[in-house]
Amino acid sequence: MKLTILGCYAATPRTFTNPTSQILEIKNRLFLIDCGEGTQVQLRKNKIKFSKINHIFISHLHGDHFFGLIGIVSTFTLLGRTTDLHIYGPVGIKEIILLQLRLANSWTNYSLYFHELESNDSEVVFEDEKVIVKTIPLKHRIYTNGFLFQEKPDKRKLNIDAVKSFEIEECYYQNIKNGKDIVLDDGRIIENSKLTFDPVPAKNYAFCSDTVYDETIVSLINNIDVLYHESTFLESEGLLARKTMHSTAKEAAIIALKANVKQLVLGHYSTRYENIKLFKEEAETIFPEVALADDGVVFEF
Amino acid sequence: MKLTILGCYAATPRTFTNPTSQILEIKNRLFLIDCGEGTQVQLRKNKIKFSKINHIFISHLHGDHFFGLIGIVSTFTLLGRTTDLHIYGPVGIKEIILLQLRLANSWTNYSLYFHELESNDSEVVFEDEKVIVKTIPLKHRIYTNGFLFQEKPDKRKLNIDAVKSFEIEECYYQNIKNGKDIVLDDGRIIENSKLTFDPVPAKNYAFCSDTVYDETIVSLINNIDVLYHESTFLESEGLLARKTMHSTAKEAAIIALKANVKQLVLGHYSTRYENIKLFKEEAETIFPEVALADDGVVFEF
Repeated sequence: MKLTILGCYAATPRTFTNPTSQILEIKNRLFLIDCGEGTQVQLRKNKIKFSKINHIFISHLHGDHFFGLIGIVSTFTLLGRTTDLHIYGPVGIKEIILLQLRLANSWTNYSLYFHELESNDSEVVFEDEKVIVKTIPLKHRIYTNGFLFQEKPDKRKLNIDAVKSFEIEECYYQNIKNGKDIVLDDGRIIENSKLTFDPVPAKNYAFCSDTVYDETIVSLINNIDVLYHESTFLESEGLLARKTMHSTAKEAAIIALKANVKQLVLGHYSTRYENIKLFKEEAETIFPEVALADDGVVFEF
Repeated sequence: MKLTILGCYAATPRTFTNPTSQILEIKNRLFLIDCGEGTQVQLRKNKIKFSKINHIFISHLHGDHFFGLIGIVSTFTLLGRTTDLHIYGPVGIKEIILLQLRLANSWTNYSLYFHELESNDSEVVFEDEKVIVKTIPLKHRIYTNGFLFQEKPDKRKLNIDAVKSFEIEECYYQNIKNGKDIVLDDGRIIENSKLTFDPVPAKNYAFCSDTVYDETIVSLINNIDVLYHESTFLESEGLLARKTMHSTAKEAAIIALKANVKQLVLGHYSTRYENIKLFKEEAETIFPEVALADDGVVFEF
């Protein structure tokens, strides 16, 4: 997986910082997560191929997470897109986009599918042969979801030397990759583990923004590889965090610790802070593996 | 008048160019004209004081002229604005903005007044003691207006030496500034022109974008100081200009010539052209006083 942070600051876009947007690349699929104003310019700056984006996930309808969506939908048309585009987000997102297309008398050249979300339980919103995406219901001032992106396990890799040494015919290779044991002509059973190598472990990534500290998400993100969790504030502004239903860096770290994730990535910093290193320092008092998102930063895992 | 070009390129925002937006400063008033995506960042880059913008004029509901509006409306709230904001634009603009505020459950702290336009005749949309703004109905693919900004003439300036030489009492000064002649105690009539200097001539500026070549606007912009007229294309793409209801640089120059304006400013360039100097060269074959808008350029007149 490759995660490109297009923007990770709260509230308004500024000269050198951008509101929330990320590109997650999994097995040659590009998923766009949230889409603050200016996201399409950030895509250009980060040399992301527009045409490879087929699925856009919007956490909630606060402007710093979706005001750039209508611009991208329109730009796709100007770029001559013909591939389907799927948008996943709260109820109302379809009305906002279609109203603007209608008033501009500028319909898309491509098919636009809206998957409006309203459940308060985690649900599968996307699935193909390689990837599955589930919602992570969050607690914020308006209806909000995080998203859990999970690779499906690859098939087992054929140990070609072992297979040949047993003189197994090619027509059985697919069964072996699928994990099956093999019965030889002389009746011997060869266990699959002797004929294959373990595949690269499937990875998973959770995006959780915006949310107040909420332990109910822990069971949904247990043991995952990377958790992006919002940390709008430091504990010194803890009261403000609770009032606005955001989290502090310390609270994000507690969630990471309880969920036993491998890596915590912090983001959605309030623009009041000049030095984002303070977020890392605060979180590291609770949880050791902390990285800071910043606009243009790329994580590979 | 001081005109700051925040963006002047057609269609999509790009890494180094911005869609249409301008700030016109007249007698300490700031008028925002059109508001493509990213306008609020361009305001910051050009060090324009957000709090001084009280009136926003939107020509039409194509995205490159208004997708930045909802972001500015929201940012004003985050900045703690309390002053009224007036938005002038086509019918539908109110529904778009209010729908997004409602779904975000984020109403403004300040009063937001929409002045929805639907007339096909020129009308006064704003007037105070110093400035008057009228629509310039344009012909484009959807309902579109340009805007004519006119300073009202200043009062005449008192020639204090002349006034004293006639021993005129101060209580008459206001009448003299208002252009009145004075009758002295001995019955002599002193003409106003002997007691005053001419004021600085009132200036006017017309913004015309987007539009196909349309001579009917000439009578509305006759003899004005500065005309910003769109030139999306060069004549080499004239067929495309007519098909998409845009103008070429040559057509913009013909309008400037027919209207006898003092200065033509070109803008709204298609991003297909790498060298915008070609627009100036084409227009100058018709009309001598041509300037090129570009992002960040300031005109004072």
